[in-house]
This record gives sequence, C-alpha cells and structure tokens, in this order.
Amino acid sequence: MATLNATIASDIKSALADFFSTHQFSNVFVLVDENTTEHCLPIIQDVLPEFWSVQVKSGEEEKHIETCSMIWRSMTDARLDRKALMVNLGGGVIGDMGGFCAGTYKRGISFINIPTTLLAQVDASVGGKLGIDFDGFKNHIGLFKDPNHVFIAPQFLSTLPPRELRSGFAEVIKHAYIRDISYLHKIKSKSLKDQPWMERIQHSIDVKSQVVLQDPTEQGLRKILNFGHTVGHAIETTYLKTDKKLLHGEAIAVGMICELFLSHKLLELEKDRVDEEGRYLVDVFGCKSLNKSDFEQIVNNALQDKKNEGGVVKMSLLRSIGDCTYDIPVSAADMLDSLFYFNTIAEH
Amino acid sequence: MATLNATIASDIKSALADFFSTHQFSNVFVLVDENTTEHCLPIIQDVLPEFWSVQVKSGEEEKHIETCSMIWRSMTDARLDRKALMVNLGGGVIGDMGGFCAGTYKRGISFINIPTTLLAQVDASVGGKLGIDFDGFKNHIGLFKDPNHVFIAPQFLSTLPPRELRSGFAEVIKHAYIRDISYLHKIKSKSLKDQPWMERIQHSIDVKSQVVLQDPTEQGLRKILNFGHTVGHAIETTYLKTDKKLLHGEAIAVGMICELFLSHKLLELEKDRVDEEGRYLVDVFGCKSLNKSDFEQIVNNALQDKKNEGGVVKMSLLRSIGDCTYDIPVSAADMLDSLFYFNTIAEH
Repeated sequence: MATLNATIASDIKSALADFFSTHQFSNVFVLVDENTTEHCLPIIQDVLPEFWSVQVKSGEEEKHIETCSMIWRSMTDARLDRKALMVNLGGGVIGDMGGFCAGTYKRGISFINIPTTLLAQVDASVGGKLGIDFDGFKNHIGLFKDPNHVFIAPQFLSTLPPRELRSGFAEVIKHAYIRDISYLHKIKSKSLKDQPWMERIQHSIDVKSQVVLQDPTEQGLRKILNFGHTVGHAIETTYLKTDKKLLHGEAIAVGMICELFLSHKLLELEKDRVDEEGRYLVDVFGCKSLNKSDFEQIVNNALQDKKNEGGVVKMSLLRSIGDCTYDIPVSAADMLDSLFYFNTIAEH
Repeated sequence: MATLNATIASDIKSALADFFSTHQFSNVFVLVDENTTEHCLPIIQDVLPEFWSVQVKSGEEEKHIETCSMIWRSMTDARLDRKALMVNLGGGVIGDMGGFCAGTYKRGISFINIPTTLLAQVDASVGGKLGIDFDGFKNHIGLFKDPNHVFIAPQFLSTLPPRELRSGFAEVIKHAYIRDISYLHKIKSKSLKDQPWMERIQHSIDVKSQVVLQDPTEQGLRKILNFGHTVGHAIETTYLKTDKKLLHGEAIAVGMICELFLSHKLLELEKDRVDEEGRYLVDVFGCKSLNKSDFEQIVNNALQDKKNEGGVVKMSLLRSIGDCTYDIPVSAADMLDSLFYFNTIAEH
C-alpha cells in the first residue's frame, strides 16, 4: 500500500499493451457487467492476452456475498492459480467486489482496475478499499488491498449516461471541499458538461493519493475523505431498495449539504457559506427534499456506520472550505437537525 | 506479519488477564463451538471483559461461507466497531474461519487465537493463514493476516478425545521431518501418550515461526510446511463427506507416506528410510489402505491445489529427513504410484 500505481491514460489500449508486455501471468480473468461488456470490453479486448471472463449484473444491489460466490466459482472453473491476474472492468461495484474476490481467492491473487465511470475513476479505484455490502450495510465486509495497477481512461466517460457522470462529479467537488478551496472556484466556474475531465480526474487522484499514502488503513487523516459520506451513505442505504433510489454521488451531494450544515453548527464554518454551497449542490444535482417520515431510518442507518466507535457517530467536518477535520462527535439530534436544514434548501 | 506474537502459557487465565489489563477494546466477541463452550470457555470466562459470543457447529464441514455470513451477522448485531476484539476459542476451524471473519468485518478488526486442539496449537494458530473451504476445495477463500496474539495453553489438551490429540501429532512429526532429524529421534523415542507436550509444542512453533518469518506469504521457503499436505489435502477432501472421513492429521499422515515415497522416487531419499518412516506412521496413525477406485478422484483433487501453478502439481519433498525443498513438479502418474505404494504398507 506504499505507492498508488495509477496511470491516467489518454490511450488505454497502448497503456494496457505496455503493461502486458512487461508482466507475466499464468491466466487472465476479466470481470465485467452487461454495460462494460457492451461498451468497454470491445475497446480493450484486442490488447489483452487470452482471457476468461465472467459477467455480473450491474448495480449496487448486486454487490453482496452471493455474487462473490458466483465469481469465486467462475475463477475456480477457470482453474486460476496464484499467478493469475484479475481485471476489473467497470464502475465502483466491479472494482470493490472484484478486488475483494481477487484479494481472497486462494488468499489473494493480483488484480488491476480499469474504472469506467467517473465515480470509480476519481474515487473507488484508488485507495485500496475493497468490499461488499452485507445485510443492507454498505461495504460492511471487505479488505484493504491495493490493486497492482489502476488504468484510468477518460475516453470511457463518453459511454456513460449523463446522470452517472454527474454522480462522479460529487466526489470531484468533495476533494476540493476537503483540501483545496482555490480548485473549488475552478470547478464552479464551469458547468457540468464543460468540465475538462482529464484535469479534474488528475486533481482528484492527487488529493486522494496524498491523503491515502499518509494513512492507508484509515487510522486518522484518511477519514477526511468521508466528508459527506456518513449522512450520504445512510441516505443511500435508506432508499436503496425503493423507487426513490439515488445514485451514490446524488446521495453524497445530499450528505455534503447536511454535513456542511453540521460544520457550521459544530465547528466554525460560516452559515452564509453553507447556504451558498448548499444551493450550488442542489442546483447541480437537482436534490429533492426528503420525506420527514424517513429521517429516523436515516439516523439509525448512520449509527451503524463503520466510522463510528462506541455508539457515538463521529464525522469528518469542515473547519472552513478546503480544511477538513475528523472524529467530530455528532448526536442523533444534530443529524436530524441537518436533515431539516437540507429540506429548507432542496427542491420541492 | 513481522513477528509472531505467540505465548505458550502454563496458566492461561493469568496470561489472558495480563493481556486484557494492557489492551483496550470497545467490545469483545468470542467465537466458540459446542465443544469449547462446554470444556474451554468456563476455564477463561472469568478473566474476559464483558463479551458477546456466538457458537458455531464444530467440524471442517462447517467451514464455509454460509457460516461466515452467520458470524458476520452476529458481529453486526453486537454492533462491533473497528476497535472491537474477536477471540477465537477452538481448533483450527474456529481459528481459520474466525480470523477470516475478523479480518474482513468492516475491513478488519483485531483478533486473538486461543487454540484448544493440539493441531491448532502446533500449526493452524500460527502463521497468518486464514480461510474457509469453498465448493469442496480446502482453504480456497481466505487471507494472510496475523492474529494480534496467540495464547497456547497445553492444559486444554486434556479436554481432547485421543483421536484428536493424535491428529495434531502428525504436524509435530512433520516439523521434525522438514527441519530437524535429531528432534525426530526424540519424538520417536516416546509413545504418543508419553509425549511431553509443552516441549513438543514449543519445538513445532519454533520451526514454524522460523519458516514463516522468512516468508510470510508463501513465495518460496514457507512451502516446505506443506510437506505431506498436497496428497494429504486431496485425500481429506475426497473423504470429507463420506463415512470414511479422516481427521486432518490422519489424512496428512497418509499424505506424508505418499510424499516420502515421492521424495525417494524424484529426489535422493533412501528407500529404506521411506519404508521405516512409513511403517512408523502407519503404526501411530493406524492408517488403513485406500480403495483403488478413489485414486483418480484423489489425483484430480490434488490438481486443484492452491500450491499449483500452470497445471503442474508442485510439491514440497525431502532431500533427506530434516531437509525439505519445494516446487518439485510431480506428474499425475507419479502421484498414482505413491498411492499404490501407500497401500503396500498400510493396514488391510
């Protein structure tokens, strides 16, 4: 976990061809979903050595232990040995779950990630957090383990639906909120469709890498990457199996609004700034107000968050824009309060 | 994985009391089976902090992903956070599976092993190999991760059925075969019931620790610990769900006889020595001849062993007693031959 081997490749085929010309594996196994089978695998398959593949259904709802069993079974059928390579071609779900399967098959084989969504490119594919959901709890079972390499190709972004692209944009904004106020101005100076993605991805990975390299297993500093995620994950979980299901970034946008409010209530962030950023996020993500009858469930879900210790919810909050701190205890009442605040600025 | 924190404790209660007086955890969770609930937990429960526990059924047949799901669910119900401690109180199955559950719950919490069988005390609890069986393949899914501490208490051996004690003795003998011919003479100078276990356990752990510390993730030298295990595991798997089910050490005794023969056929081990050691093992373990109609299945199972690469079975074999080497390619025909040899010396 000492270095982050990530390449931002303007030409993914030649980057992969280089990799396979300098690395030997006994076997190559590619994990895809129905979207990456159709849109992404055709782009790279010519430069892969002979390979086996398995396709899983796309979506966070599939990121559970039964899907892992199916993947492990396919790996076994392919007779993968310990010198085999797994290639995770897809979004965050493919990277998280494929990495977990690779990291536990025969106690761990090599794997590379080729993230195909903006969300995975700027966040999930870098940093070594692998895992699956369990009994409705997000990333409840997993590992810390770095991929052998991450290949980030902005050319895959053109295969994404606009709503998926916007979902990833939430993490780009988060990286500016926690570490870089001047970069936030750059981001906000352009509309979503006009963002220069190569530059945005590079900035996000730089921020994330700096943080992760200092604290790979999240003992301290790395927690700042969770800004927006305690409330955001709780909201994502609450609506996961409903017709109000949110994409990850959409839930994180709501979570960031709530946690901006908590940063004002519990730390020194100015209220005017909370309102300004809140309105920006509502505008970009089209955040709709939440049903008050769901608030209790959201707070209960937050109480089960991995980042909590001893029954107290500890959050990463902003002292100011660009300066995030962590382990701030937040009461259930304050969380409720932040949800009420969110509803005052959200679309109705 | 740099050091092996193992304590051989003549008084397990005071060793545990020391540990808990110097380490803080948010919560303690104990994994037991019906045997350790009855015979072992009563011995230590007074010195544990307040704890949750979950009991699983004993036996290798239970070491699978569904049992892990049950354990993860119990850990979740106990609201364990990342500062919690898991205590694995039992034999190899409890240590392997409990360690895997602890190592993956919320991406890994602390765990200690208190092995209660001779087999686990001299082998499974030391060395960081965690895992479960999958689709009939032994330890197919798992991790390398060291427990925070291992507490080895010979006093638990008096709770074991004699056949279980004998099963562990196979690994004690193996450690002498691979590294220490003079210690083999000491072992063979006493009958099973007269072995000084404190000394035997210490020797086994010394041998294993020396090897594991040089090569924690089994890139090379550590493979010598697999002597007897390629054929042994294949035999264990073949009979796992039959009425001829063997205990692990019983299968390894047969595996060692086969691999002693292969050490003669493929390396320089003298045939007289193979016969002498073979007869000793048959005598101690009461090895019964195998049904020839099972040979093909045994060889096929060996072909799926984790230690193989590129379809060739590579084994750890003896150049001489006390000197083990590894990565010796063995053909299916040679494996078959070794099974026929075994039958010539086994009990009929």
